[in-house]
Amino acid sequence: MFSDKHKAAGVCYPQGFTAAGVRAGIKKNGNLDVAVIYTQKEAAVAGVFTKNLVAAAPVHLSKIVVGTGTAHAVVANAGCANACTGEQGIRDAEAMATITANELSCRQDDVIVASTGLIGSNIPMDKMTSGIKDAVKNLSREGSVNAGNAIITTDTYSKACATEVTIGGVEVRFGAIAKGSGMIRPDMATMLCFITTDADIDQKLLQEALRDATEVSFNCMTVDGDMSTNDSVVVLANGAAGNKKIVDKSADYQTFYETLKTICIELAKRIAADGEGASKFLTINVTGAESFADAKKVGMSVANSFLVKTALFGQDPNWGRTICAVGYSGVKLVPEKISIKFGDILTYAQGCGVKFDVEAMKKVLAAHDVTIDIDLNLGNDSATVWSCDTNYASVKLNADYTT
Amino acid sequence: MFSDKHKAAGVCYPQGFTAAGVRAGIKKNGNLDVAVIYTQKEAAVAGVFTKNLVAAAPVHLSKIVVGTGTAHAVVANAGCANACTGEQGIRDAEAMATITANELSCRQDDVIVASTGLIGSNIPMDKMTSGIKDAVKNLSREGSVNAGNAIITTDTYSKACATEVTIGGVEVRFGAIAKGSGMIRPDMATMLCFITTDADIDQKLLQEALRDATEVSFNCMTVDGDMSTNDSVVVLANGAAGNKKIVDKSADYQTFYETLKTICIELAKRIAADGEGASKFLTINVTGAESFADAKKVGMSVANSFLVKTALFGQDPNWGRTICAVGYSGVKLVPEKISIKFGDILTYAQGCGVKFDVEAMKKVLAAHDVTIDIDLNLGNDSATVWSCDTNYASVKLNADYTT
Repeated sequence: MFSDKHKAAGVCYPQGFTAAGVRAGIKKNGNLDVAVIYTQKEAAVAGVFTKNLVAAAPVHLSKIVVGTGTAHAVVANAGCANACTGEQGIRDAEAMATITANELSCRQDDVIVASTGLIGSNIPMDKMTSGIKDAVKNLSREGSVNAGNAIITTDTYSKACATEVTIGGVEVRFGAIAKGSGMIRPDMATMLCFITTDADIDQKLLQEALRDATEVSFNCMTVDGDMSTNDSVVVLANGAAGNKKIVDKSADYQTFYETLKTICIELAKRIAADGEGASKFLTINVTGAESFADAKKVGMSVANSFLVKTALFGQDPNWGRTICAVGYSGVKLVPEKISIKFGDILTYAQGCGVKFDVEAMKKVLAAHDVTIDIDLNLGNDSATVWSCDTNYASVKLNADYTT
Repeated sequence: MFSDKHKAAGVCYPQGFTAAGVRAGIKKNGNLDVAVIYTQKEAAVAGVFTKNLVAAAPVHLSKIVVGTGTAHAVVANAGCANACTGEQGIRDAEAMATITANELSCRQDDVIVASTGLIGSNIPMDKMTSGIKDAVKNLSREGSVNAGNAIITTDTYSKACATEVTIGGVEVRFGAIAKGSGMIRPDMATMLCFITTDADIDQKLLQEALRDATEVSFNCMTVDGDMSTNDSVVVLANGAAGNKKIVDKSADYQTFYETLKTICIELAKRIAADGEGASKFLTINVTGAESFADAKKVGMSVANSFLVKTALFGQDPNWGRTICAVGYSGVKLVPEKISIKFGDILTYAQGCGVKFDVEAMKKVLAAHDVTIDIDLNLGNDSATVWSCDTNYASVKLNADYTT
């Protein structure tokens, strides 16, 4: 589905969207750090945000914007999270919206604001003001790559994708940029994701689709188990495609939802694969669960285990740590019914380890992509979660982040 | 209280206990690996065990022994966890009890069995049989140090302590040995702890005292967030001190409980400080909570945060990760009311970071022992939890454990 043909087009692949990313001097390294995404045609907006009670100022603000149901723009920056910044933080986030709104001649409550970076610093508003003005001047149909690069922090690359689908005989396009590398775990991550679409869809359905898609994508991945203060996923749907408006859970809605979900899963996988310091990408398939929630809980317990993640780095066939993490997941299960495979190699069944071909196992663990299949053999529900290894680089990156 | 004068006496400090630790060849490195602790006078027994649903065979067996209310002996080994070993595992654990019981002329259900080490391997029963026989032959009042060394795995030292207290005018003694280094987290850890006392106490009260003491000690520490399959804490109380039997929640019970609690906290702190690869010891005091459970939850959320633990290693004053981990702890709180101190330096209050003396902070973070105080300012309950840093050595130790 993702030919990557339109990846560079990103959030500007759907009709009616422009974007820009500029250098405002907020990132210490002088890279791009302020992004604006704009749709002249008013868009229905939906958003899901961090559940961390210590949420950053822009999260509080953007929730209000989503509450209005519509938006014209997103303004985002990296290099400063504007979290734990009190009243000043709220004023700064509001100012970001106001400046953007003035430049774009839209209402302040039409502007989604997002920040990522170090917690506890204030936004340098002089730099931000010039940055926003500069970005708005540079808005273009070719601006997605720069916008994507302006929101990354410790990511080694910007995550982007774009695709199209036919809804009611009309081509509808989707595009997205995302960032996230550290402080990543279920119920959102230190991640930002902006999705654009020219689909015409009712705002309430858009919110429902985003919530459901997030649950099986961004909420099913982990890097380090830490849930950030700034996580935001926002969709703008401007209706420019001219499809018959999606107003109920029709076949059109299903097509829309499946496409949105595929995009979210694709980006979630890329974020996990690019976890801070990661050298391996881990997919955990949990089947035979009594519910999706159970399956996800088991998967996330394994995906967050320091011992599983370091063993993955060491290419160590330590299935014992996997079954151990399954056992403490908090899900009701019968150890003797569970089976665990590394790749296609059975390692645990009927309560015991299973003798396996050591050479074949070495090959499975030497690969960049490793899959662990866990069958609980209790029911018919399943979940897939994504993670990465923990290694020296993960420690190094996090041992001296602020200094 | 812990003069360490009686540390070497350990589990043999109370009257009527003997112990031994021998080399049976179960550990690959040839170190001591089988321990026996014995009391000729029947002891009341209490135990708390891992809540991991994938519990090891000896855990299942020892729960039954605790259920009988009395015990004469503990047999334990390191080097093989006898976990995920199915029916054979149960038979092996039973055989360990039977052999010990035969050698000591007591009943099989008077023998607590515990194992620690690699998950998924079977006990080499020929080596185990000779080991147990050898240990029983070597039982002595000087055997605690060897017993302690026989139960350690990746620990860099054996944890032991001993103390005495006056109950009803009579000197009552306590002694303990413990192990635990990796796979350590609340609700027990990959830890074994055997506590002896010559106090005379009702078995039900003994169990209650142990459960309460565990809650504020072993269940309040973490190394890597993984809960093991083998965790067991067992107390034997043989009554040899001749105190008036404790049969209700009298002042004598309180004295007994406080002493037991102090021992458990002391050992929990030593286990956290000796976490796999640890170079720093972290104490987190959470105050102003609406309940102990809330305070503990907040503390453990911080104590388990990969980002907090790597920042501690890096001596990085990253209080943002601390407040972030407080925010996602799942406890109801008001961010603006919280204050956070590193040592005695205020870093966060009223929703914002607080400017601090950088040189003074460097000194706080350069120390081996670091304390973080978190005041939720909501209620009157508190909890203290213990953790350690995560560093290159923690990764290395866990990246190639089985290979």
